[in-house]
Amino acid sequence: MSIEDRLSELGLILPKPAAPVAAYVPTVLTNGLLHVSGQLPFREDGSLIVGRLGETIDVPAGIEAAKRCGLMLLAQIGAALDGDFARIERIVKLGVFVCSTPQFTDQPKVANGASELMVAALGDIGRHARSAVGVPVLPLGAPVEVDAIVAIRTS
Amino acid sequence: MSIEDRLSELGLILPKPAAPVAAYVPTVLTNGLLHVSGQLPFREDGSLIVGRLGETIDVPAGIEAAKRCGLMLLAQIGAALDGDFARIERIVKLGVFVCSTPQFTDQPKVANGASELMVAALGDIGRHARSAVGVPVLPLGAPVEVDAIVAIRTS
Amino acid sequence: MSIEDRLSELGLILPKPAAPVAAYVPTVLTNGLLHVSGQLPFREDGSLIVGRLGETIDVPAGIEAAKRCGLMLLAQIGAALDGDFARIERIVKLGVFVCSTPQFTDQPKVANGASELMVAALGDIGRHARSAVGVPVLPLGAPVEVDAIVAIRTS
Repeated sequence: MSIEDRLSELGLILPKPAAPVAAYVPTVLTNGLLHVSGQLPFREDGSLIVGRLGETIDVPAGIEAAKRCGLMLLAQIGAALDGDFARIERIVKLGVFVCSTPQFTDQPKVANGASELMVAALGDIGRHARSAVGVPVLPLGAPVEVDAIVAIRTS
Repeated sequence: MSIEDRLSELGLILPKPAAPVAAYVPTVLTNGLLHVSGQLPFREDGSLIVGRLGETIDVPAGIEAAKRCGLMLLAQIGAALDGDFARIERIVKLGVFVCSTPQFTDQPKVANGASELMVAALGDIGRHARSAVGVPVLPLGAPVEVDAIVAIRTS
Repeated sequence: MSIEDRLSELGLILPKPAAPVAAYVPTVLTNGLLHVSGQLPFREDGSLIVGRLGETIDVPAGIEAAKRCGLMLLAQIGAALDGDFARIERIVKLGVFVCSTPQFTDQPKVANGASELMVAALGDIGRHARSAVGVPVLPLGAPVEVDAIVAIRTS
């Protein structure tokens, strides 16, 4: 089953890869590792989700935001591989930054929105190492930003 | 001298590797690099150290917390290598996140708790690149979180 | 044209690599990847730029600070390669941490100070993946910290 089919079963469609919001590129592939730039949570209509955990959005909304970051990571990975997701060897690492009040300590629950999407979309090769931390603010007011390292088969 | 012996001389014992607090795995080994998930500071009795630098805990307590994160990193590395620490080629990079008030600027001193443990346990191959930053809050209220990249000999 | 010449055209000179402010090393090269420790923004006279975006320094000053971090990254890369910048295959990833008030959301603009320097100094191989996040405080009160992953030709 293709990744698009798996996402479809989850009611998700792969978005158009977002353009970088500044002077960098979405992905760099070298030495068998694809480094993916930090992705922000865009809705299907292209609008950005904004908010801060512990203040203006709650844990379920944070999880949804993290899932949208994960979906954008998959879109960027797909663009880097010309759509050939079969070249993914392993999702190696996710770096999850959660915009949090100083009292909010459920970053792991929020980050699961991205982590569980990876496993749902890719199966066992989607299981990754991770760090999840709180930050006071993110670009454009986003509640979550996620970057990734992906091992790629060099065919 | 084994790593366990070196730790023992420091009065430390390798803890049981902590289970991930969410939907990810402790380590991923690929392309000769082991990526280790962010580790929190657990005491020997398994309880979590909590607090914020500049507020509820001081620099020496922060150093101790960072050391406990480092010890857990070693435990996770050991688990990934079936205990064969001789396969470690180099500790490449530590990412250190210190829960800080906006006025606390001694993140490097705190992070040294993890850095110095790596060198004490592993000698020269424990010398690593590092980033250390302040964050407003960490999962479960921890004062320090540390992740790692380790180069592994592919025997 | 050498990297020193390109920098000179920008009115910049490569600084002396800063010594780590604690128990770690500036760079580790392994598996074709050079990991560079988080660099702080030092002025030409060796003094540290301090401040917080949204509070004590503005966006142009933040951009300048990020550029100084980028310059120090180049100095550290140069030191690791004994000055042989031709061995750089690609700037793979920059991790940019911007000391921000909770209301400041222009981290990408600030981070461009480092990103644009990489491209100005290195051309196309300077184009990199990036994450940029807000943090409440950085070591020694710096407004920006940037770390890097660089692919190196193994001659």
